[in-house]
Amino acid sequence: MGVRCDTKERHAMTGKAYLVGAGPGRADLITVRGLTVLRQADAVLYDRLIAPELLEEAPPRAERIFVGKRPGHHALRQEGINELLVRLVRDGLQVVRLKGGDPSVFGHVAEEAEALVAAGLPYEVVPGVSSAIGVPAYAGIPLTRRRVASAFAVVTAHEASETASGIDWHALAAMPTLVVLMALTRLDVVCANLIAAGRDPHTPAALISRGTTAQQRVLRATLATLFDAQLRADLPPPAVLVVGAVAALTDTLAWFDPASAPAHHMFWEDE
Amino acid sequence: MGVRCDTKERHAMTGKAYLVGAGPGRADLITVRGLTVLRQADAVLYDRLIAPELLEEAPPRAERIFVGKRPGHHALRQEGINELLVRLVRDGLQVVRLKGGDPSVFGHVAEEAEALVAAGLPYEVVPGVSSAIGVPAYAGIPLTRRRVASAFAVVTAHEASETASGIDWHALAAMPTLVVLMALTRLDVVCANLIAAGRDPHTPAALISRGTTAQQRVLRATLATLFDAQLRADLPPPAVLVVGAVAALTDTLAWFDPASAPAHHMFWEDE
Repeated sequence: MGVRCDTKERHAMTGKAYLVGAGPGRADLITVRGLTVLRQADAVLYDRLIAPELLEEAPPRAERIFVGKRPGHHALRQEGINELLVRLVRDGLQVVRLKGGDPSVFGHVAEEAEALVAAGLPYEVVPGVSSAIGVPAYAGIPLTRRRVASAFAVVTAHEASETASGIDWHALAAMPTLVVLMALTRLDVVCANLIAAGRDPHTPAALISRGTTAQQRVLRATLATLFDAQLRADLPPPAVLVVGAVAALTDTLAWFDPASAPAHHMFWEDE
Repeated sequence: MGVRCDTKERHAMTGKAYLVGAGPGRADLITVRGLTVLRQADAVLYDRLIAPELLEEAPPRAERIFVGKRPGHHALRQEGINELLVRLVRDGLQVVRLKGGDPSVFGHVAEEAEALVAAGLPYEVVPGVSSAIGVPAYAGIPLTRRRVASAFAVVTAHEASETASGIDWHALAAMPTLVVLMALTRLDVVCANLIAAGRDPHTPAALISRGTTAQQRVLRATLATLFDAQLRADLPPPAVLVVGAVAALTDTLAWFDPASAPAHHMFWEDE
C-alpha cells in the first residue's frame, strides 16, 4: 500500500474534527495526512498564517471560515471557535481546523479537544511542521548540533513578556538553543531579560521574518545588538528568533533562496 | 496553482541533496514536499525509524542505502555518510537523505550540510514533524497549554545522561514541559536527576512507545514512579518521555486507537 495522497477515504457516517497543522508557511510543508483530510473537508476553520493555496485544496462545496485575529476586526474568541467546531461536527460534517505550524505548540489544541471530548465527538490531531523548527531550518539553522547544542527550548515572546506567566528566565537563558515565536512582540524585553538572566550578550542571534516563503528575510546579530539591528532592518511579522551558537550557522549553511520560492503569499497579521 | 503532490518536477542538470524529515513514524505524516522529492530520487540514504512504505515511494530504479545503526552490525560512521552523500551528489544524482522525525532535531543535519557546502554542492532541507511534538500529539498531549505550560524544552536521554555534555538539569527541571527523546536510555537517571534538580516527584509523566504507529503504547505515571512502572510494563523502544502537567492530559484527551492504524511496521532498533 502506497502513501495516500489523493485517494478519497469513505466518509464516516458521523461528523469528525481534524485539528491540523498547516506547517510554517510554504504550502507543501503540510503533511500528506493533513492534505488528505483537507481534500475531504465539508468545512474549514482557518487561522492566520495559512497559505491561501491550502484553502483551495478543500472541495469547492466546503465552507471556509476565518477564525483568526485580524487587526481592526473583532476576532472570534476561543470559546466561540470551540462552540462553532462542536456545532459543525455535531451536524455531521468533516471539519478541518487548520492552524499555522503545529497545533500542539501554542495552538490551543487542548481547549478545542476538550470541547469535543465534553460533547462526546470524535477528533484526530494531524501534527504539522512547527514554525519553531521549520523556519530556522529554512534559514540554515538546526536547533541541535553535536558538541554545540544538546537541547533546545521554545517559548513565545508574548508568554515571555508577561510577568504573571511564571516564565523562568534563568532556565530559558541556560538552554543551549532558545527559539522564540512571535518574536517581534517586545523583542527588546526578551533580549534584555535573557542577558539579565545570565546569557552572554555576545551569543549569536538570528531573527527570521516570514520564513519558508518568498518573503523570507534573515537578520543576524548578537543578543545585545539584535534589537537595534531590527530597528534599522524593520523586518515584518511573523518572525522567529533563535538564540544560541547554532544561530551563527546561518552564515555558512543558509541554502534557501526566497526568489526561487513559489510566489504565494500568506494571510499575515500583526503580532 | 495547487499543492504539488505527484507532479514530477524537472530534474536539475546537476545533482542535489535533499535532507528530508520523514516524520515520527506513520508514513503519511511526511510532508508533501518530502514525498515529492522522494518520488524523484535517484538514491535514498535512509536511517532507522523509517516507515518501509516510504521507501516504496522512491522510483524502482532508485538505489536504497541503509546508513543507520543496527544492533550487532557495524554502522556507517557519520563521516562515512557525509562522504557517500557528497559522492552521489557529485555524480549528478538527486539524493534523498531520509531521517526519522525532523532533520534539525538531533538529526546531524549540520554535519551533512557542512560537508555539502565544503564540496560546493547544492542541498535543500525538508523539515518534518519532529517526534518530540508528533508523538505526544498522538497520545493526546499538547506541549503547551494556556495557563498550564507556556514553554517546552527538548533533549535526548543519551545527551542528558552524559555528564560531559554540559546539560543544565536545573534549567530542564524548571521547564513547564520537558520532552525527552530516546527516553529508555537510562530512564532511571533522567527521572532521578530531574527530581534532584528540584522537580516535584509528583509531576505527571507519560512514556510513549512507538508513537503514531499500530504498536503505540502509552504509560502514565509520575516522575517518581515512572521507572518502576516501566520495569513492569517493559515498553519497547523507541520511546518519548513527556514530563509536566500536560502529560496528564492524555488521561482525557487521548484520541488515537492503534488498532485502527495502518498495519505497517517500522525499522526498529535498540536505543
